[in-house]
Amino acid sequence: MKEIASWMKETGPHGDIVLGTRCRLARNLAGVPFPGGASRDQLREVMNKVSAVVPKLQKLGGFAFHEMGTMDALERQVLVEEHLVSPSHTENPQHKAVLLSDEANTSIMVNEEDHLRIQVLKPGLQLEQAWQLATEIDDLLEAQLDYAFDLQSGYLTSCPTNAGTALRASLMFHLPALRRVKKVQEVLGTVSKFGLTVRGLYGEGSDIWGNVFQLSNQITLGQSEEETIEHLARFADQILHSERQAREYLLEEDRKLATEDWLYRSYGILRNARTITSQEAMELLSDLKLGVDLGVIPLGDPQCLKQLMVQIRSAHLQRMMGQPLPVQERDRLRASLLRDTLNNKA
Amino acid sequence: MKEIASWMKETGPHGDIVLGTRCRLARNLAGVPFPGGASRDQLREVMNKVSAVVPKLQKLGGFAFHEMGTMDALERQVLVEEHLVSPSHTENPQHKAVLLSDEANTSIMVNEEDHLRIQVLKPGLQLEQAWQLATEIDDLLEAQLDYAFDLQSGYLTSCPTNAGTALRASLMFHLPALRRVKKVQEVLGTVSKFGLTVRGLYGEGSDIWGNVFQLSNQITLGQSEEETIEHLARFADQILHSERQAREYLLEEDRKLATEDWLYRSYGILRNARTITSQEAMELLSDLKLGVDLGVIPLGDPQCLKQLMVQIRSAHLQRMMGQPLPVQERDRLRASLLRDTLNNKA
Repeated sequence: MKEIASWMKETGPHGDIVLGTRCRLARNLAGVPFPGGASRDQLREVMNKVSAVVPKLQKLGGFAFHEMGTMDALERQVLVEEHLVSPSHTENPQHKAVLLSDEANTSIMVNEEDHLRIQVLKPGLQLEQAWQLATEIDDLLEAQLDYAFDLQSGYLTSCPTNAGTALRASLMFHLPALRRVKKVQEVLGTVSKFGLTVRGLYGEGSDIWGNVFQLSNQITLGQSEEETIEHLARFADQILHSERQAREYLLEEDRKLATEDWLYRSYGILRNARTITSQEAMELLSDLKLGVDLGVIPLGDPQCLKQLMVQIRSAHLQRMMGQPLPVQERDRLRASLLRDTLNNKA
Repeated sequence: MKEIASWMKETGPHGDIVLGTRCRLARNLAGVPFPGGASRDQLREVMNKVSAVVPKLQKLGGFAFHEMGTMDALERQVLVEEHLVSPSHTENPQHKAVLLSDEANTSIMVNEEDHLRIQVLKPGLQLEQAWQLATEIDDLLEAQLDYAFDLQSGYLTSCPTNAGTALRASLMFHLPALRRVKKVQEVLGTVSKFGLTVRGLYGEGSDIWGNVFQLSNQITLGQSEEETIEHLARFADQILHSERQAREYLLEEDRKLATEDWLYRSYGILRNARTITSQEAMELLSDLKLGVDLGVIPLGDPQCLKQLMVQIRSAHLQRMMGQPLPVQERDRLRASLLRDTLNNKA
């Protein structure tokens, strides 16, 4: 786990606007209380059962079983920053675990809110592919484990709003142009009417940082997985279209200069700041990514941008330095990393 | 007049804090009404008398007589930006003139508020030198012209507040550190009690731009020229001391990083902006000058900074392009000039 998860550093289809795709399936074992109500012994039993099936997953590539309790706080936080575990999965880490694929594009949280949360992450817009892989993993696990399922409610989940398919498909959109032209609300404000929901970078309750918006399905009952995926894909198309329109607008004759000015100023600050918070760094990197995607700012290695968006986060920064660091020192090192990377890649 | 006045591009004593020194003497011809009350013929007569004595000034270097009415608006504005004529001297330019030394460090406005306003400008803190030269010019003129003078009021002037010595000595201070630590008011707020006055970059009624403050004597009656100069010099010493203290404070261990961050961000914007107003450019150049003077930002040719502070002004920019330009175009060219100069000199 010393590398950054590949889905976070690679660029996928529609990578100028969609940073990544995630499909998550929630599953529980029959006859065992949900984690919130289970005893220590029962949680341990779930861990043992899951760790025993790891070898069965090898046909999909290497997987490793990590107990959350044996990691240090920094390692756990790195997983959160790569979206491989949820923030809540790092709290009370005893009797929690995560199964990670070698490339860290797949993670299975054990004893989070549900016994199992299978997550597949892909760069760019890859709903079908992510869902397919999640399903394959699910099938392999289901062949070994006895899932809690009933015909009326589908897969049973700790929180009833997940029951049914227990599928949550999410797209991580980068929408700097829509925000610039103040149309985010117009485009995303109505999603709940369509059974979808929008959140910030780190999911529920998290702020919007760096113009990254997560769009997910909200409905899991009375809708097939295929329908969920298809519905989200259709909506994603509309968002892509709106963001592209906003980008074209920003490059129109009479506002191109203002757009270039805005983006280059951000680039200038990124290459000159001596101390910077992760939030400001995300905002400026968002501007720079837009500049590169619009062809306004040439960057020798545009790939470094998506990578920087992860490297500048606090846990990654501290892992890079090999130790926990006070906030001020992190802000200083973050600025230094940005300068070094961008002045070399420019 | 195609070059920038040498006092504006050179650095003088205490040039890290004092951009320039100006000594101005107001004089009027006896028996002719002040310009505000004079007829066209009388104004013309003053012009003729002054232009006739130009050869007598040659022992101090070359001088040329320019009628304001024969210049185009851009040329007149360039003179204002170099502080060689006052803004009001460009209004109704008929029957107004200016005598300029070859290096444009000396200017004599004819028919401004008074018949003659002799101005000597020097880079840095050079009160004695500027006053000496002004006096030499004054002596040469007085030998040829009959000045309005009486024993009680001294030199008579259009505005009674100038009567007496009719000397106004000014220092142009660059006080970015005092402003940063919010002590400008503390240091300059009491000057009127000491018979001094503070103004912005372009004198009376002008805003403070780029942390440039003009300090001048207010009293001209009942005080000798020597006393005026000495008094101002003493006060200047105090300001220099306060600004240097503030600069040391900004470099103290626990705030050095924040100072570097602030100054480098400004430098980054200067080297990246695609459009910029003259006011913002002045503010950022002020930051950059502080960065260079503090030894925080190395600049291959620090001299270019003082020059840029003039070149970015609207009339200079338009003269450089050889034509009047709309505001938007000026803002674009200003950004381009800053990038070209600073990216080459860095």
